Amino acid sequence: MAGTMKVDGKPMRTIWPAEDGGAVEIIDQTLLPHRFVICRLTTLDEATHAISAMQVRGAPLIGATAAYGVYLALRGDASDKALDAACSALLETRPTAVNLRWAVDEMHSHIAPLAVEEREAAAYARAMEICDEDVAICRNIGINGLPLIIEAAKSKPESTPVNILTHCNAGWLAAVDWGTALAPIYAAHNEGIIVHVWVDETRPRNQGAALTAWELGQHGVAHSVIVDNAGGHLMQRGQVDMVITGTDRTTSQGDVCNKIGTYLKALAAHDNNVPFYVALPGPTIDWTMSDGIAEIPIEERNGDEVKWISGRTAENEVVAVDVTPKGSPVANPAFDVTPARLVTGLITERGVCVASYEGLAELYPEQAGQKIL
Amino acid sequence: MAGTMKVDGKPMRTIWPAEDGGAVEIIDQTLLPHRFVICRLTTLDEATHAISAMQVRGAPLIGATAAYGVYLALRGDASDKALDAACSALLETRPTAVNLRWAVDEMHSHIAPLAVEEREAAAYARAMEICDEDVAICRNIGINGLPLIIEAAKSKPESTPVNILTHCNAGWLAAVDWGTALAPIYAAHNEGIIVHVWVDETRPRNQGAALTAWELGQHGVAHSVIVDNAGGHLMQRGQVDMVITGTDRTTSQGDVCNKIGTYLKALAAHDNNVPFYVALPGPTIDWTMSDGIAEIPIEERNGDEVKWISGRTAENEVVAVDVTPKGSPVANPAFDVTPARLVTGLITERGVCVASYEGLAELYPEQAGQKIL
Repeated sequence: MAGTMKVDGKPMRTIWPAEDGGAVEIIDQTLLPHRFVICRLTTLDEATHAISAMQVRGAPLIGATAAYGVYLALRGDASDKALDAACSALLETRPTAVNLRWAVDEMHSHIAPLAVEEREAAAYARAMEICDEDVAICRNIGINGLPLIIEAAKSKPESTPVNILTHCNAGWLAAVDWGTALAPIYAAHNEGIIVHVWVDETRPRNQGAALTAWELGQHGVAHSVIVDNAGGHLMQRGQVDMVITGTDRTTSQGDVCNKIGTYLKALAAHDNNVPFYVALPGPTIDWTMSDGIAEIPIEERNGDEVKWISGRTAENEVVAVDVTPKGSPVANPAFDVTPARLVTGLITERGVCVASYEGLAELYPEQAGQKIL
Repeated sequence: MAGTMKVDGKPMRTIWPAEDGGAVEIIDQTLLPHRFVICRLTTLDEATHAISAMQVRGAPLIGATAAYGVYLALRGDASDKALDAACSALLETRPTAVNLRWAVDEMHSHIAPLAVEEREAAAYARAMEICDEDVAICRNIGINGLPLIIEAAKSKPESTPVNILTHCNAGWLAAVDWGTALAPIYAAHNEGIIVHVWVDETRPRNQGAALTAWELGQHGVAHSVIVDNAGGHLMQRGQVDMVITGTDRTTSQGDVCNKIGTYLKALAAHDNNVPFYVALPGPTIDWTMSDGIAEIPIEERNGDEVKWISGRTAENEVVAVDVTPKGSPVANPAFDVTPARLVTGLITERGVCVASYEGLAELYPEQAGQKIL
C-alpha cells in the first residue's frame, strides 16, 4: 500500500492497513510539523477519535478514515445494529464534512445487503477501494494540471523555477495520496520541471506552515513559507507565476468556498494578471447552489484558534501561546468565497474548465442535468 | 505631561520626562500586550537601546525618543564632540527611519549654534516641543478624519456601530499620543459615536494583535482581533464600513507603502465598495517619488520573524515558538505598496484629499512646488 509521496525518502500514503492485518495506520497530523508519529487505529472508537481530534483532516482523508472505521467496527460484531451504530458515530465526528457523509453512506449501502459473515471482508475491500478511487482522482487532477505548469515553464528563462503560490493545505496530507492543489505541482516536480512553491502560512490554524511546508519539504519540492499578507506584494513584483488552491465547496456557477483568505489572493492575482487555478475533485461541486457569496453559510469557529498558536520552543517542546491581550474579543470566520469571475480555471479529475456553469456542465454532464433549478 | 489616551483609566503618552527630572520614561512595547512595564531612560546608551531593541517603535515615537536621546547625551557633556557622537549613535539605531533622521537633524541644527552651557536646557525644551508638535499633528489627523466616521454613522441604524478595519499599529503607541490611523477612531469614540474596530493581527510581528488591540482595549474602544485572512470575507458580507490604515511612505501621486498586507485589504475594499482611507502626517510624503510599485525598495527582513511567534502560555509565561518545519525556508518582505487608484482618500493634519498629486499639492503647496520632476 505504498503511496507516491515521500516521507524521509520512503513512499507513503496518509492511511493504510497495518502489515499485521490487525489495524489501520495513519499519520497523526496534530503533531506535524514538529513530530512524525504513526498511529494505529484498531477500533471504531479510535477511528472516530482520529477524525474528531483532527489526527486526520482534509475531506478525502476523513472519508477514507470513516470507511475504514466501519470495517474496524464490524470486526467484532457485524450485525445490522453494529453497522448502524458505527455509521451514526462516524457521521457525528465532523457534522459538516461532505465526503464523510458520502463515504459512510457508501459503506452502509454496500454492506447492509450482505450476509453478516461476509460483511467484515466486504467492508475492508470497499474501504481499500474508496482509498484507491481517491488516489486515482487526485492523480488525474495532477495529470490535468501538469500542462498548465509546463506552459508556464516555457515562458520562463531556462533553470528558473515556476513560482506557484498556494493557500492552506490541499496536499496529499488532506487526501490519501497526491492531494488536489498540490497534485499538479508534484506531477511537475516528478517530471523534472523546476518549481518553487510560495506557502501561505494560513492563519489561524497554520496548515500551510505546518502541513504544506512539511509535505513539500519531505518530497523535496523547493518552497518558502510566507505570511498570508505577503502574496499580493510578491505578485506585484512578478514573483508569482500562478496560484493553485483547493476548495471545500464549488457552486454550479464556479464560485469556490475555501479556507479564509483565498479570496484575497484571488483579488491580488486578478489585479496582477496572475492565473488563479482551483483544483477539485468532482464530488465537491454542489450543484444545488449557484451564488456562493449569497448562499454558502460560513462557519464561525472558536476564537481560541486565533488567540492560541502552537509551535516548538527553542528547547524543542511543543507548546501553545496566546498572542492577544487578555480580554480582547476575537472573531474567526473559517472560510471565504471566491467568485468565479476571479478564477482562471478549475482543475478537475476530468479536465480543466472555465469556472462557470457551462464549463462544469461540459465536464460533468450527467450531474449538471440533475441540477435543481 | 499627561496624554489623552488611557491605560488602566489613566491618561498617558508613550514618552514623557520623569517627574523627578532625572530621566525620560517610556512604555516598553516589547513586553506588550502581556506585561505593562514603564522603563526609565537616563543615558544616551539607554535611549539608543530603546530604539534599536524596539522598546519604542513607530516613526513619530522613534523621532521623539531620539530627540530626548540627544538631551540625555548632553547632560554630562554638552561639547560639540558629544553632540556629534550622540547624533551619529542615534542615526545608526534604525537606519531607514525617516522621522529618526529628521528629529536628529532638527536637534543638531537647533543646538549646535548655542553656547555649551545653554545646550542641555535647550535640548530638553526642543525635545518637548517635538513631542508636542507630533501630538498636534496627530490630533489634527483625528479632527480631520472624524467627519468621515460621523458620515458613516449617519447611514447606519441607530445604536449599531460603525465597523472600521485597520491593519498593523498606527495608534498612539506608534506616536506620542492619538496615533495616525486610530486618531479619527479615538476622536469618534470620545465624541460618543459607537465604533467597533476589526483589528488585523498583522503577521509576522503581530502589531495588530499585540499593540492595536491592547491600546483600543485600554481606551475602552470596542474591537475584535481577526486573522489577516479574514478582512475580505467581512467586507463581502457588509461587516466593514470603512478601512483606515497608516503609511510609512506616501509618494507624490498618492501611492502608499505600508505594512505588508495593506494592499490586499485595499483590493478587497475596492471590490466591495468599502471606503479605504490612509492617515498620514505630511512629513511621510516623499515628494521625490511618484510610482510606488516601481520606485520604493521593499525591506526583506529576517525570516525568524515569520518562524518565531511570541505569546503567553497557559502558565502566564511569555515564550517564543517556531511554527514552521525544521529546514523550511522562509521569505519576509516587510511592506507592500497600495496604488493610489485603490485609496479613497488621504487623511492628513491639513485635511482630507484625493490620493493624487493634485490632491496632495493642494494641501501642501509649498512642498509640492519643490517636487523633483
